[in-house]
Amino acid sequence: MEKVGFIGLGIMGKPMARNLLKAGYELCVYDVVEDAVREVVQNGAKAGNSIEEAIDGVDVVVTMLPDSPHVKEVILGEGGVLAYAKKGTIVIDMSSISPTVSQEVAAECKKKGIRFLDAPVSGGEPKAVKGTLAIMVGGKEEDFQKVKALLLKMGSTAVLIGGVGSGNVAKIANQMMVALNIAAMSEAMVLVEKSGVDPEKVYQAIRSGLAGSTVLDSKMPMVLEGDFTPGFRIELHIKDLKNALDCAHLVNSPIPLTAEVMEIMQGLKVAGMQASDHSAIICHYERLADVEVRKEY
Amino acid sequence: MEKVGFIGLGIMGKPMARNLLKAGYELCVYDVVEDAVREVVQNGAKAGNSIEEAIDGVDVVVTMLPDSPHVKEVILGEGGVLAYAKKGTIVIDMSSISPTVSQEVAAECKKKGIRFLDAPVSGGEPKAVKGTLAIMVGGKEEDFQKVKALLLKMGSTAVLIGGVGSGNVAKIANQMMVALNIAAMSEAMVLVEKSGVDPEKVYQAIRSGLAGSTVLDSKMPMVLEGDFTPGFRIELHIKDLKNALDCAHLVNSPIPLTAEVMEIMQGLKVAGMQASDHSAIICHYERLADVEVRKEY
Repeated sequence: MEKVGFIGLGIMGKPMARNLLKAGYELCVYDVVEDAVREVVQNGAKAGNSIEEAIDGVDVVVTMLPDSPHVKEVILGEGGVLAYAKKGTIVIDMSSISPTVSQEVAAECKKKGIRFLDAPVSGGEPKAVKGTLAIMVGGKEEDFQKVKALLLKMGSTAVLIGGVGSGNVAKIANQMMVALNIAAMSEAMVLVEKSGVDPEKVYQAIRSGLAGSTVLDSKMPMVLEGDFTPGFRIELHIKDLKNALDCAHLVNSPIPLTAEVMEIMQGLKVAGMQASDHSAIICHYERLADVEVRKEY
Repeated sequence: MEKVGFIGLGIMGKPMARNLLKAGYELCVYDVVEDAVREVVQNGAKAGNSIEEAIDGVDVVVTMLPDSPHVKEVILGEGGVLAYAKKGTIVIDMSSISPTVSQEVAAECKKKGIRFLDAPVSGGEPKAVKGTLAIMVGGKEEDFQKVKALLLKMGSTAVLIGGVGSGNVAKIANQMMVALNIAAMSEAMVLVEKSGVDPEKVYQAIRSGLAGSTVLDSKMPMVLEGDFTPGFRIELHIKDLKNALDCAHLVNSPIPLTAEVMEIMQGLKVAGMQASDHSAIICHYERLADVEVRKEY
């Protein structure tokens, strides 16, 4: 069994690390939050007191961090992965970050003989726990093949999309569609409610047709109950859409509707709903339409 | 078997009438286009030379017309349904029109003892042919029960949503979500392409996750082939979204993203693509992003 250094034990990283442990991988873990390290050590991981310790003697380094700056710091920064990783190590960054930062980091890794894959995930905490994430990978085919078995301990699918950065491009596309599909559902359903028609009956009538979507089936029941427990937090979705905009500006591909829905979410954040599920977008429409809003907003 | 008067033999009405004939209903049909009447007469219908003839002695009148003004004219106008229908007749308007027009027409019907249901459909020509439309009904429960069996000869589902007009409210909600889900897919996929990543690989990687939708699975293959054969024509979708906006303004429920996607479609119409499938929305984004557009635009 391979030895793995695992850096970043947040809401996603923790269950992902546990699934690798369950599968028999030898894990050394590191996080700036010491409690998080202790928790995963109880599941059988070795504690790293620094990045240097966490990646000592490993073949593979997995990073699962909040956003682009953290990935740059942990991999390229002082005392970071590149300072200590041995030649030939494969670094798998599973964070959802800007594709250009993935490419920038990969280029620095290459100079030192370190191989790099970007491998962001979709599915959120519940699928991280079950080990059924969808993993979108960018990088070289041979590196992907070497770690595919490992990835499939954390996800039910791991697909190589293209070169480095393409995993995050796929993730961005995913997050754009999810955000806009939620906004579409919200805009339509508030109109239904204001027309004096029962949103649940409309949902049941249309869900099997062309308007059907995974968003509709997973979020509409939450909306009907006014339950905005994440799921996926608005503040994280804003972050992903900001990466989408950065990417879109860089490659010159305007994304006006995405920009608009990002600003809708930004309004919810300003109103203190940053930790609500992204289905709370409907509260924006409820306020616009001056109906009773299900949550303080 | 009941006798049915069927008015409106367009792309949708023709196959719907045929399915009623196949099921054994006695049909008398009328359309301003005489050729359309002749075609359905070959399938066993009786020809009406006027609305008066078409509804003579029937228990049920079905109308399938382009938009609100046609429905008002055919039902309320001079020589229209209300001038000749016997008391107790059930008028089922299966056109996709403004919910307020449905209510207006229903009120006039009521004055003369005529019962009215709005019952717009979703699924387009292919499902009209197969008799597998999704039918969204607004009106009284007892009237719905009387014609449910008849509706189920044209559709695979017929759901009573609420009072008169609620069928069209559901249809509007459906069309808003479809339009915005197509725009979401298009905005994301052009970004993917401009990032140098293969849209088909991204599609395959994300289709089973939260971004999955019936729009994605039915339209993405068309988009990848550059095939914009309708399907559902842009000009018809514009009409439906115009009804959505009229409804939204009336009930004071702002729908800014729908307005924006309607104007995107309007731009395609101006460019001569009114008869393309609504998945051609992607051509708008291709032009925005200055990539080679798949169709003259």
